[in-house]
Order: sequence, then structure tokens, then C-alpha cells
Amino acid sequence: MNKKPTIQDIAREAGVGPGTVSRVLNGHPNVSDRTRAKVASVIETMKYRPSFAARHMRTQKSRLIGFISDEVATTPFAGKIILGAQDVAWEQEYILLVANIGDDVVRIDKVVETFLERDVEGIIFSSMYHREVYLPEKIVSVPVVLANCYSADAIAPAVVPDEYKGGYEATANLIGAGHRRIGFINVNTLEPGIPASIGRWRGYRAALAAAGIAAEAALEHPGYGSEIDGYNCTHALMALDERPTAIFCANDRTAWGAYNALAEIGLRIPDDVAIIGFDNQTIIAESLHPALTTMELPHYEMGRWAANYLICQPPEQNRFDEQVRRLTCPLIPRDSV
Amino acid sequence: MNKKPTIQDIAREAGVGPGTVSRVLNGHPNVSDRTRAKVASVIETMKYRPSFAARHMRTQKSRLIGFISDEVATTPFAGKIILGAQDVAWEQEYILLVANIGDDVVRIDKVVETFLERDVEGIIFSSMYHREVYLPEKIVSVPVVLANCYSADAIAPAVVPDEYKGGYEATANLIGAGHRRIGFINVNTLEPGIPASIGRWRGYRAALAAAGIAAEAALEHPGYGSEIDGYNCTHALMALDERPTAIFCANDRTAWGAYNALAEIGLRIPDDVAIIGFDNQTIIAESLHPALTTMELPHYEMGRWAANYLICQPPEQNRFDEQVRRLTCPLIPRDSV
Repeated sequence: MNKKPTIQDIAREAGVGPGTVSRVLNGHPNVSDRTRAKVASVIETMKYRPSFAARHMRTQKSRLIGFISDEVATTPFAGKIILGAQDVAWEQEYILLVANIGDDVVRIDKVVETFLERDVEGIIFSSMYHREVYLPEKIVSVPVVLANCYSADAIAPAVVPDEYKGGYEATANLIGAGHRRIGFINVNTLEPGIPASIGRWRGYRAALAAAGIAAEAALEHPGYGSEIDGYNCTHALMALDERPTAIFCANDRTAWGAYNALAEIGLRIPDDVAIIGFDNQTIIAESLHPALTTMELPHYEMGRWAANYLICQPPEQNRFDEQVRRLTCPLIPRDSV
Repeated sequence: MNKKPTIQDIAREAGVGPGTVSRVLNGHPNVSDRTRAKVASVIETMKYRPSFAARHMRTQKSRLIGFISDEVATTPFAGKIILGAQDVAWEQEYILLVANIGDDVVRIDKVVETFLERDVEGIIFSSMYHREVYLPEKIVSVPVVLANCYSADAIAPAVVPDEYKGGYEATANLIGAGHRRIGFINVNTLEPGIPASIGRWRGYRAALAAAGIAAEAALEHPGYGSEIDGYNCTHALMALDERPTAIFCANDRTAWGAYNALAEIGLRIPDDVAIIGFDNQTIIAESLHPALTTMELPHYEMGRWAANYLICQPPEQNRFDEQVRRLTCPLIPRDSV
């Protein structure tokens, strides 16, 4: 590979000093037209491109945002967080540095150190699923914002899905379609404190209460989020003396299992039993028959919100702000309700 | 936010010249122990961190690799290309800059320009699905390597899945299990020239021929890769006078449709009909009953290969190399064959 031409190379070739080349590059008026034309022509011929590094050193602004995630880059759908952040970065002439840390607790310190060496102006820390995370101490030496997670010690602002409102809207949608007896199959209930499990369940209960419908233990199943689990819980719900006419499945894989159980029993969706899912994992939701009505996780919007917060907010608002911003999970109506 | 301390700030505080601070930072022997201790203490107190920008300007090496993708960052499984590239980058102390261009032909020029301004040492260009791509002219001013795609004019080396060998192995696996009458449902056949369709089909034909089995038009279906398509084609195959005892589905969604059709007819997998898929889209393959035997796309390995090629190969081997490297799609045995 040829060595890139430097300002010195341009100056030598044009027979001027490096300061003159710099003045031409920066559109400084104090250069004769003849000299300007000569320098411009050499720049063109030698294919000189100013490096951002010099500007970075001069302005002390890197125009870089670091993006750290656990497994988000390899998750079926949470990669949209990166896309949202990246779109804002491009609009604002920033670039995203990405690093996936997986479960590697050593790597995270190294990633933060490397990002700080590169003078990132802020860091987005993001998780595959909505959860509490612990941030390394060093990270807060630049503005940090969390996306799809929140910090245990509230040292950084966070943007997360509004699980409660999503659960409420999903259930209200079934009630609006005339259902009064609504089953609920939860997800991730093996682990305590998962916001999706707690929020979606509370939303379900609140929507029932708002419609004057009594909650009933037999209609609520803890669950683990798998297809087989949705299948088993649906069989249990349909074996009740008074079976539900609708089921709110707290994720789409669970809904898939519900479809399989109902097909086996010979019940039609939505005529005999209506189903609503959660996540809008399109590879499943669009392929099911009938296509699954579900709630979408606002991954793209969380990514946008986080990048926007870092790039466009005044710096003093960026740090040690305890706010957790909850974004709406929109209803994606298809054919199962 | 406080302004970052500079070398000048450290020098002033320690009462030495900036050159002395620089010598301390670089472990230069020509500094007294007393001065070294004083400077080290000020560095510690003022939380000074050397910026990479100065090293970048000095060495003209950015230790950055650009990663451009169409939709790869938001695809269910191709995000592993990023992960593979990133793992190699970290091992070699490089960082990945990522940009997702979507269908935006204007953005690609801007992305390349921005990457070049940042002095990236190479660019990985990657596609969501294996296909031919056209590269912008400017991109080849640094070493470029293509992952999961190849350039129409062969101006850059490429790493892609070995579709032919994958199709061959999938079919050979069914033959090895005792099947002689094997159906084939292809994918993406609406578009001409898709390497997955052509390669997997040729592999199927070659494996049959190697086992002395005659190809039969009635057993081969063009297809589009959807669940409903797999469902319809499987019904058609099962309606033949002499029905196949196994089906090679050229993607996992098609296999899902085959499962649904066979369940409807009352045929068991693998006892009555064996099924093999392609892609190893785990969200589907692991949730099907029985779990789906399939061929995995080497996304992670393609990402590693591409980054390795850029970072670890001598530069003169990087450019204008017409080589297309095909990586094996490994068999993922589960319970459907």
C-alpha cells in the first residue's frame, strides 16, 4: 500500500510552506489566488485527504460514541438498538465504535479503557434483554447512558421498554375484543426480578382490574419463555372446567407453543381462542397461521434515544441523572385477536 | 464535563518541560528517579490518560477497521459476522467502526469517505445474505475484504459459505440414513443467480449422483423460503404416488412448513419422513419437535476470516486478489433425520 501523502508532501510538491497548505485547506483568506490554485491542484493530483486525527487533536473532540453490549449484536432482534444509535450518530456526524463483551468481565474493563484512550465523547451500554446491570467504575469518567438495561446503583440514565404499559395494552386489547376470561402465560419466571416478567404481569392484572374482571390464580401460569412451555401451559388452560377464550402470552415463542396446543385440540384462532404475544419477533409472528398479534419492543427507538441523549443534550445533564425513561411497546395488530 | 488534562498541564503542575513528561510516559531511561516519581504522581492525581490520537498521528496507524453492512446488524443471525470480526480485532488490539447502510446508496459513499478520514486500515464489506454486490470505487483506496458476498468485478477478496458442499453434505446425510427417495424444496428461486439456491441444489444433485440415485423432476420444488411455501411443497411431495421418505429443505423456515404439513397428514418425523434444513436459525431449529437437523452458516467464521485477512496478512496480498474463499457449513445433528 502506498504511504498516504502528508501536508509536508503537498507543501514540498507545491513549493510552499506547510502553513500555507493548512491555510488553503481551512479556507483562510490570506492566500493569493495563484497559490491557492497551485496547492489545490497538488492536493487533487496527490489524492491528499485530511485525516480526522489532526482535527481531533486540535479540537479535543473525537466525534466518537462507544457502544458496549453484552450479546446484543448477535441477538435475533435487539441488534436494532445498534441501528437506532447508529442512525442518530450519522445524522450528527458521529461514528459508533462497537464492542460486544459477552460474559467476559475482564473484557469490559479493557473495552472501557480502549474507548477512553480513543476519547469517546460518551458510551452507550446495552443489554440483550431488559435487566439490571453493574457498570465498571471507570465508565463514568465520560457520559454514559444505558439502553434496555438500568444500573443497580443508578449512576447513569437509562432507557427501557415500558413493560407494565405493554402488558396493560395487550390485555386491554383482548378485553376490547370482548374477552372476559383471559389466560396469562408469563416468561422468565425462574429468575427473580426480571422487569419483563414483573411488568407484563402487573399490566395484565391492572387491565383486568380496570375492566372490573377478578384475577384468578388458575388462569395465570409462570413460564420460562419456550415454545414447549407455551404448549404445556395452553393445554393446562384448555383443560379447565371453564376455559379462557383468550390468552396473553408474554413472549412470541410461548404464543407459538399455544398455537401448537390449540391446533392439537382442534380449537381455531381467533374464533375459539384469541392469542396475543409480546416481542414482535417477526420470524415467528409473521410465519404463524394466523399471523400473530403482538406487542413490539422499542429496540430501534431505545438506540435512537440513547445516542440522542449523549450527543444532543447539554453535558451537565448527562451525568449522575437517575432518570429511567420508559418507551412504549406499540401494538402490532395481525390476525390472532 | 471537566476538560481533559494535557501533557502541558502535567508539565506545568510537575514543574518540568513537556518533553520530560513524554519521556516518562514512554519509559525513556534518560529521566532521574526523582523527576519520574514526581511526574507519575501528578499523572495519577490529575487522572491524565494519553490519547490515542497523538500515537495515531505519529505512527500514521489508526488501528481501526471499518465494517460496512447492508442489513447485517439487524438480521436474526448474520450479526455473528460482526462478532467474529470484532473478536479478531480485539485480539489484535484493533477496534471496529460499524456502519449499516441499508438500501441507502448515498450513505455508502458518505460512510466510505468518513472511514477514510478516520484512516481505517481496511474495510470489511458484508451482506445479510450471500450475494453479489457492487462496491463504490473509492472503497478500494484501502484494503477491502467481502464477507458473505462477493464483488461483481472481483476487485476484492471474499469469504462466503460453501453452499454447494453444504447441499452435498445435507443430502449425503439423508442417504447415509438409508434414504433413496429424497425430496428437495429450494429457496429464493424467484431471483436468478442467488448462490444459496444454485449451490444447494447442485450439491443435492451431486450427492444423489455419487450414490447412484437418479434425479427426478417431481421430487424437486422451486421455493421462496417461507413457512407457507414449505407447507405447500411438502403437501405436493406427499401426494405423489411414490412419496419421498426424506426432504432436504433449503432453509429452516421451509422445514418448519414441512413439519406443519406432515403433522396435518399424520406422518411422523423422522420415522415416516426425515427432514434436514439449512441455516441453523436456532430460534426455529431448536423449538421444532423433534428438533431440526440442519446445516449451519459459518457467519462467525466469515467475520473472523475477514478481519484476520485485513489485520494479519501482508498488505501486498490484500489488494486485487480475486480469491473467493468458501467456508464449510457444518452439519448440526438434532432429531429430525
